[in-house]
Amino acid sequence: MTENKPGKITMEKLVSLCQRRGFIFPSSDIYGGLSACWDYGPVGVELKRNIREAWWRANVQERDDMVGLDTSILMNPKVWEASGHVTQFSDPLVECKSCHQRWRADDLKENKCPTCDGEVTEPQLFNLMFKTFMGPVEEAANVVYLRPETAQGIFVNFQNVLNTSRKRLPFGVAQIGKAFRNEITTGNFIFRSREFEQMEIEYFVKPGTDDKWFDYWVEERLNWYMKLGIKKENIRLREHSKDELAHYAKRCFDIDYNFPMGWSELEGVANRGDFDLKQHMEYSGKSLTCLDEESKEHIVPYVIEPSAGVDRSVLAVLCDAYDEEIVNDELRVLFHFHTDLAPIKVAVLPLSRKENLSAVAKDVYADLRPCFVTQYDDTQAIGRRYRRQDELGTPYCVTVDFQSLEDNMATIRERDTMNQIRVPIAALRDTLQAKLAGEDLFVLPEGGVIWKQGGE
Amino acid sequence: MTENKPGKITMEKLVSLCQRRGFIFPSSDIYGGLSACWDYGPVGVELKRNIREAWWRANVQERDDMVGLDTSILMNPKVWEASGHVTQFSDPLVECKSCHQRWRADDLKENKCPTCDGEVTEPQLFNLMFKTFMGPVEEAANVVYLRPETAQGIFVNFQNVLNTSRKRLPFGVAQIGKAFRNEITTGNFIFRSREFEQMEIEYFVKPGTDDKWFDYWVEERLNWYMKLGIKKENIRLREHSKDELAHYAKRCFDIDYNFPMGWSELEGVANRGDFDLKQHMEYSGKSLTCLDEESKEHIVPYVIEPSAGVDRSVLAVLCDAYDEEIVNDELRVLFHFHTDLAPIKVAVLPLSRKENLSAVAKDVYADLRPCFVTQYDDTQAIGRRYRRQDELGTPYCVTVDFQSLEDNMATIRERDTMNQIRVPIAALRDTLQAKLAGEDLFVLPEGGVIWKQGGE
Repeated sequence: MTENKPGKITMEKLVSLCQRRGFIFPSSDIYGGLSACWDYGPVGVELKRNIREAWWRANVQERDDMVGLDTSILMNPKVWEASGHVTQFSDPLVECKSCHQRWRADDLKENKCPTCDGEVTEPQLFNLMFKTFMGPVEEAANVVYLRPETAQGIFVNFQNVLNTSRKRLPFGVAQIGKAFRNEITTGNFIFRSREFEQMEIEYFVKPGTDDKWFDYWVEERLNWYMKLGIKKENIRLREHSKDELAHYAKRCFDIDYNFPMGWSELEGVANRGDFDLKQHMEYSGKSLTCLDEESKEHIVPYVIEPSAGVDRSVLAVLCDAYDEEIVNDELRVLFHFHTDLAPIKVAVLPLSRKENLSAVAKDVYADLRPCFVTQYDDTQAIGRRYRRQDELGTPYCVTVDFQSLEDNMATIRERDTMNQIRVPIAALRDTLQAKLAGEDLFVLPEGGVIWKQGGE
Repeated sequence: MTENKPGKITMEKLVSLCQRRGFIFPSSDIYGGLSACWDYGPVGVELKRNIREAWWRANVQERDDMVGLDTSILMNPKVWEASGHVTQFSDPLVECKSCHQRWRADDLKENKCPTCDGEVTEPQLFNLMFKTFMGPVEEAANVVYLRPETAQGIFVNFQNVLNTSRKRLPFGVAQIGKAFRNEITTGNFIFRSREFEQMEIEYFVKPGTDDKWFDYWVEERLNWYMKLGIKKENIRLREHSKDELAHYAKRCFDIDYNFPMGWSELEGVANRGDFDLKQHMEYSGKSLTCLDEESKEHIVPYVIEPSAGVDRSVLAVLCDAYDEEIVNDELRVLFHFHTDLAPIKVAVLPLSRKENLSAVAKDVYADLRPCFVTQYDDTQAIGRRYRRQDELGTPYCVTVDFQSLEDNMATIRERDTMNQIRVPIAALRDTLQAKLAGEDLFVLPEGGVIWKQGGE
């Protein structure tokens, strides 16, 4: 049986599992979807929320030198003139002279239309910003764009942040939010979609210290992924070559992940110099400087930009945590999510639906749910329920059985090892709290701990 | 001095304070803003996050009958044909025959242009959905809309949610996300903007039980606001009259808040019957039914929709918490935020910048910050720093003074009462934890508690 061979992850398996378990659905599914847009289901939304929270905690709340921001998607169009997006943010596009389909010039092998083999036009630049019209008249004066990146919302608020937060160099501003790009070529599940979510930092430093801070942030961001359980061998740094660098960038590193389709960018860290602030000073006529404590002069700082994708982080976490193994001659599929990221932390599973068991299990559930995202499931055979929780990446299952009625103990079953440990019901909450926090030791108020090895 | 008279809140005062303290800025501020779009600053983003979290916790994580969802802003345009938005979601608009400005027909007192007094046209329906073009060609086939509500993302995923979460009637789906409406008339700060954030629930019930569940949700949502500290006298229910009801709605209540500009809608709770699911069944050809456990028949459920605005909730919380009073002959302005919502929970303020004080204060800060969002401030006279924290709505300030070096105690100053209590430094964290959780009693491991009354 092919089902019984543990294999490697493929995008097909992942997409199918994500839909089946409620992680990610195609957007507008019942209408045949919408090209390259995706919806996060009941489990996926919790995974995504946990990734956002981990990023916000590490980059805003646990740091003295950072503040958060949440700027709007629709911005004054002058922002995109200043940033260069109106003139520069384009892909070369050709059109077939026969069937009038359009193609990205660099995607064509020959100068022929892939559909009808017709002749194609010379490449024309096609701007990737979505545009719309604000106010009741559709005319050029009312054109606004859906932001293609969240970063500019930080630059235009530079002085507002400085005035209200009283930060001094070096300091950073962090933001999470949606961005939109009318990509010609999309695909690879949630890797490249037209609507996506960014987690961006703009870290302002004194010119001359920028190389040091650039190195710091590359290291810092790399460590963040590894702290969340991404395996070191699946992540690499790739420096942009001189001719690959954006015109404003002094230096840029991609943090690549080894996705099923190959190594691809998970995050970019760029030294943007003073390009953005200077452009906005010129276009707005406003001063965007701050005091250099040493020289007592007002300077335009340099900026280091670690720019991550929420959806790409979700995809990397899913790929990295995915695992297949054979247990009792059957295929076990599971996600080894880091406990901070797991959408569901604990599942409470009564061995049967018998009333006396349900009563105890429901008490356990009521005790745990205020502390962790907990699910109660009494629908099928216990083995199938364990497999379901494995596919949801739930780190701990708590099983209440008939012996629990005698000894007031329940079984904690660990996702990764399938080890089972028997714990007094009164100590369940503290034990799980310690385990979820990654603490090795836990103290039971009474009674012992009995280990059962792999007993499924 | 007029400054010394405590007065009532006005929108002008609130907008100014929000900008000065980093709650909310006009979007694209340095370019003169963008009509009716706003950015949340370093403090505002934390307030908004706390409101979202409180809603998610209450409506998803603490309930067995609800799951979350996060669907995309861009959806297949057929969604908006089925929902009725393409044909129905319009305002009547007139155009001035002389100056060609456009106006909302129901905003004009007479049939004259408010700008040039010119004659205006007959009203024409103007659709409020923002539209854009997906893919490289601008033509009708590629039109997509920015969603004008998050609700439809839930309806089109009804079957996906049912298949993956195995919920049974009654159950609900909750979602938080951005929506966009090309409103002709905007204003009142963040009350009506063209880009806004919704928190919507679609709660599916068996037809016949819908009146009961409608009453339940009106009560539930009302209580949610009051649990977050909104004063009962500032909130009211208003039932829609028959001719005010949307054509699909069986019944609708507005939860109104007493904003500075008068009573206005904070949230709507509607009984939408089976309108939405039936429309999507017709337009998609897919079955959107679920099993009724009693009759064992597949039915199209009715839906109760409590639809709240994140930005309106932020505005209500700001207005409700705003206060002015005279203290020592000076005006004190403060926000009495509920501790769960306060953007900053604790501020650590060394009495002076002397090194030995800083060392102790920084230890205190390092001890508290992993537990609560904590700010360290040593910039000005202590009185000014208290006033600053009052304007940020910080519930507790911890002051480290020279006596602290002798007795290892620090002062906790309460925002609302200005009472000061002296607490052993070793007990600060537990004491603040208890106070923030609203617990009356707290136990100090050693040493006593000395109360000082209003000593500023």
